[in-house]
Amino acid sequence: MRKGEQTRAAILDAALELASRDGLEGLTIGLIADSMQMSKSGVFAHFGSREDLQIAVIQEYHRRFEEEIFLPSLEQPRGLPRLSAMYAGWVTRHTREIDSGCMYISGAVEYDDRPGPIRDELLSMVVAWQKALLRAARQAVEEGHLLPDTDCEQLVFEMRAMVLALHHDARFIGDRHAVDRIERGYVRLIDSYRTKSSKTLPHLRLVAGDAR
Amino acid sequence: MRKGEQTRAAILDAALELASRDGLEGLTIGLIADSMQMSKSGVFAHFGSREDLQIAVIQEYHRRFEEEIFLPSLEQPRGLPRLSAMYAGWVTRHTREIDSGCMYISGAVEYDDRPGPIRDELLSMVVAWQKALLRAARQAVEEGHLLPDTDCEQLVFEMRAMVLALHHDARFIGDRHAVDRIERGYVRLIDSYRTKSSKTLPHLRLVAGDAR
Repeated sequence: MRKGEQTRAAILDAALELASRDGLEGLTIGLIADSMQMSKSGVFAHFGSREDLQIAVIQEYHRRFEEEIFLPSLEQPRGLPRLSAMYAGWVTRHTREIDSGCMYISGAVEYDDRPGPIRDELLSMVVAWQKALLRAARQAVEEGHLLPDTDCEQLVFEMRAMVLALHHDARFIGDRHAVDRIERGYVRLIDSYRTKSSKTLPHLRLVAGDAR
Repeated sequence: MRKGEQTRAAILDAALELASRDGLEGLTIGLIADSMQMSKSGVFAHFGSREDLQIAVIQEYHRRFEEEIFLPSLEQPRGLPRLSAMYAGWVTRHTREIDSGCMYISGAVEYDDRPGPIRDELLSMVVAWQKALLRAARQAVEEGHLLPDTDCEQLVFEMRAMVLALHHDARFIGDRHAVDRIERGYVRLIDSYRTKSSKTLPHLRLVAGDAR
């Protein structure tokens, strides 16, 4: 990387950390400049405006999310194994993000009543992930792992719902049992839709023992 | 009501509206004074500090929540009818609150990383409601409406999860199908736990047709 690119990446890194802690609205060029020991105009040289920086932070968050969760799941066989891998990766990420919070979830509450480019960017990322889950669920039907009349939209709604509850309970209530509940809920949910022949597929453990 | 009490109630009403729109953190004595066309010291005469006002707002929100949802549910028979009535009331309230948002949910994200009296107050209200749902679920087991080995904590976790998803999807994604999904999810959830003898109990429609 050239020097300019390195600086840009370092600013983005610091901004991502700040936004995870204080929310995207908490992100200002001044704060970033302070944390990088740079001048404000130095930051502006890389990001034309505060809004550009906020959007770049969302895109970087999404890039890492895909790299960490979506791409590895593609190595799993099409169908239920892949769907479970995606969900496991997502839940595991949440157990690690408990202290910083998930930008998609806190961002949704921050921007649900503030129209504009930042909300649009966040929304497109959230919807992209939702569609990826839906695609994987439909493939699980095609592969004969889930029943032909599975309501995939409903399945994904309930999967997403439990992740919202995990985030809520772990961060706000301070209840770490939420991970076990999401695990049990997912097994129950999938069992209600899976075909007889798919019973031979093992249930994926959503979160590895040491990450709990 | 005496004049002083009337003024206090009017301030609280305005504060509740402001907090629903801008969040509890958005609530300042200055804003309230402006919206009431009062002086700041006039507001201070009724609420000693901004924090006192924020806490009073949470308590008033809770009082109305109980009055609207919890108390009427007690008129339903103990067990599944009461549990369903509580849930129906909660979901219906959400469909009406879509424009202002639910203080418990937006408050959880606002305060999940801010310890202090406001977070404590919010948390105690959220936990009280959670316990009320849990108690109703356990009574449904006692009444023979749900299977003896029903994991009531798990049931309530999944019920709460879908309400979080309803709030998220309706407000952030703008997807009004969430109400149908929560309805279908609740039927599926309860069906997986209910006893044969309770099949005669009708499923409660969570949200009346005209509120959708």
